[in-house]
Amino acid sequence: MRGTVIHAPGDIRVEDLPEPQIEQPTDAVIRLAATCVCGSDLWPYRGLNPVKEPHPIGHEYVGTVEQVGAEVRTVRPGQFVVGSFFASDNTCQICRAGYQTGCVQRDYIVGAQAELLRVPLADGTLVATPGRPDPERVPSLLAASDVLGTGWFAAVAAQVRPGASVAVVGDGAVGLLGVLAARELGAERIIAMSRHADRQRLAREFGATDIVTERGEEGVARVKELTGGLGAHSVIEAVGTQQSMLQAVRATRRGGHVGFVGVSHDVSLDGSELFASLVHLHGGPAPVRSYLPDLVERILRGAIEPGKVFDLTLPLERAAEAYDAMDSRRAIKVLLQP
Amino acid sequence: MRGTVIHAPGDIRVEDLPEPQIEQPTDAVIRLAATCVCGSDLWPYRGLNPVKEPHPIGHEYVGTVEQVGAEVRTVRPGQFVVGSFFASDNTCQICRAGYQTGCVQRDYIVGAQAELLRVPLADGTLVATPGRPDPERVPSLLAASDVLGTGWFAAVAAQVRPGASVAVVGDGAVGLLGVLAARELGAERIIAMSRHADRQRLAREFGATDIVTERGEEGVARVKELTGGLGAHSVIEAVGTQQSMLQAVRATRRGGHVGFVGVSHDVSLDGSELFASLVHLHGGPAPVRSYLPDLVERILRGAIEPGKVFDLTLPLERAAEAYDAMDSRRAIKVLLQP
Repeated sequence: MRGTVIHAPGDIRVEDLPEPQIEQPTDAVIRLAATCVCGSDLWPYRGLNPVKEPHPIGHEYVGTVEQVGAEVRTVRPGQFVVGSFFASDNTCQICRAGYQTGCVQRDYIVGAQAELLRVPLADGTLVATPGRPDPERVPSLLAASDVLGTGWFAAVAAQVRPGASVAVVGDGAVGLLGVLAARELGAERIIAMSRHADRQRLAREFGATDIVTERGEEGVARVKELTGGLGAHSVIEAVGTQQSMLQAVRATRRGGHVGFVGVSHDVSLDGSELFASLVHLHGGPAPVRSYLPDLVERILRGAIEPGKVFDLTLPLERAAEAYDAMDSRRAIKVLLQP
Repeated sequence: MRGTVIHAPGDIRVEDLPEPQIEQPTDAVIRLAATCVCGSDLWPYRGLNPVKEPHPIGHEYVGTVEQVGAEVRTVRPGQFVVGSFFASDNTCQICRAGYQTGCVQRDYIVGAQAELLRVPLADGTLVATPGRPDPERVPSLLAASDVLGTGWFAAVAAQVRPGASVAVVGDGAVGLLGVLAARELGAERIIAMSRHADRQRLAREFGATDIVTERGEEGVARVKELTGGLGAHSVIEAVGTQQSMLQAVRATRRGGHVGFVGVSHDVSLDGSELFASLVHLHGGPAPVRSYLPDLVERILRGAIEPGKVFDLTLPLERAAEAYDAMDSRRAIKVLLQP
């Protein structure tokens, strides 16, 4: 089968790879209907995470089950499925508390930018749709697999409540879908922090009521101006840098909530500042599986259209172009068709 | 009047000071029935916080209202009152959300180790008891003014729930009262981390079900052993050092909650570790005022006896000895009688 391999920073190739097989009785193999490039894939692409040796890449996926192991009970060949970017058993205490990315059996999904994908712990990782979805829903279902689920978790972690003021740091796909999640969760004021016209437009479409173009301390000052001098009730952090984390903490009112989902890179938080800020801080790898049934349902009834974050679609063979387009910010997010 | 002044690290003196006056129409002046030394007073005493110039010290207090300003409505001369260590208006949006230590008008209480104390924003800071309390309740009411309220906030911030497992890092008065708060909030298993026999005894009396004497990684491993390998649902951090914060984060299960109330000193949290841990982190200066009505009621009906943390009582004149006894760990907490 054809699949994407990262060889080194900047070196993405689509190659012939062995077809994935059922390795454990809890595995499934799925044929991908669509996959995509994640903001977090850009870290190794940019050389900010090391690439020790060439390896298959990609962790966002929707598709049709081809094969299941002997112990798989909840999905069967022929079903259309959406899955999380982390495999989880969905039965341990941590999963039952809603933290499938902390599952005691958790496993990474690797190599989803391909024709076929092995998904471990299929029962606890995949969610089947009722029937085969309309092709126009596929991009939105694909978004649910990671970026929507992550933006949603960020909004939940930031305790977005009806009537709340929300600020969103980061205008990538996750930040934009954090805006959408905040709107769905009833936020009254949603402040998107963005400097890019295309992303501002999508943020507005997803529910942003205000756009702040300033960053750092100026950005914080603008958010405070817009929230009666106090800062936002809830702030979503969707970048993962020192600057974005500080911007998020400082734009939050005392007693408010920061939900952070940008994968942290060289972030160090000062204890005294955190202490004085009185904010709640919660985040990490989003337990997408926890939200998938609800998100799939919202998508299929047309309540939300997160697939709008895909502003470029390419055949899988052109994965290298997809990375380049996202790296250079020519595209927000690229869908790949196997 | 007589009052305590810190002149330099290790140099505590009780001196003649001018009597505090009503300065703002929202002030009250109270005659102290009891005051005490706080763990946080030891930071300047030990030279770990600078003492730029001599200043009155102390922020924990109960007593009788002597005088009120023209705008004070909820307390009147002759009433016995308990107050928070931060003054707050208790009417702003931040206060109404339960974060009086983040009040837009907040002010420090300074100079409570004295005969008389000026309390700003009296209506929003003080709580009057119904009638004059039995003298044997006074130490417990004094504890409510800071250490009980702080331990309580830590337990609330750590989301202690009925049936939860709770670990408490720190065996000072706040940690011990965190144990008591966890018990009151319904925790099933309460693991106190302590190496001192007297504090272990009090922890057991307050509700600890297990004592862990190990620290650092060994302490974390012991907490995990006691919690099915997962870590505690809720961890209270009541020290404020790098080691204690890491111990708290690492002893918490994924998706669990850390409530931190130890005043942070040179603490730096690594973003990647926090991200991967999936814990909730919340803390800061405890909004004691938020809990005072409930805590006073629990004390007066005899449900809790937090005053047991005072294992030494001295006349105010001997404040220097009180500091020395706490600094050398001969006493957990010293009550001073003006």
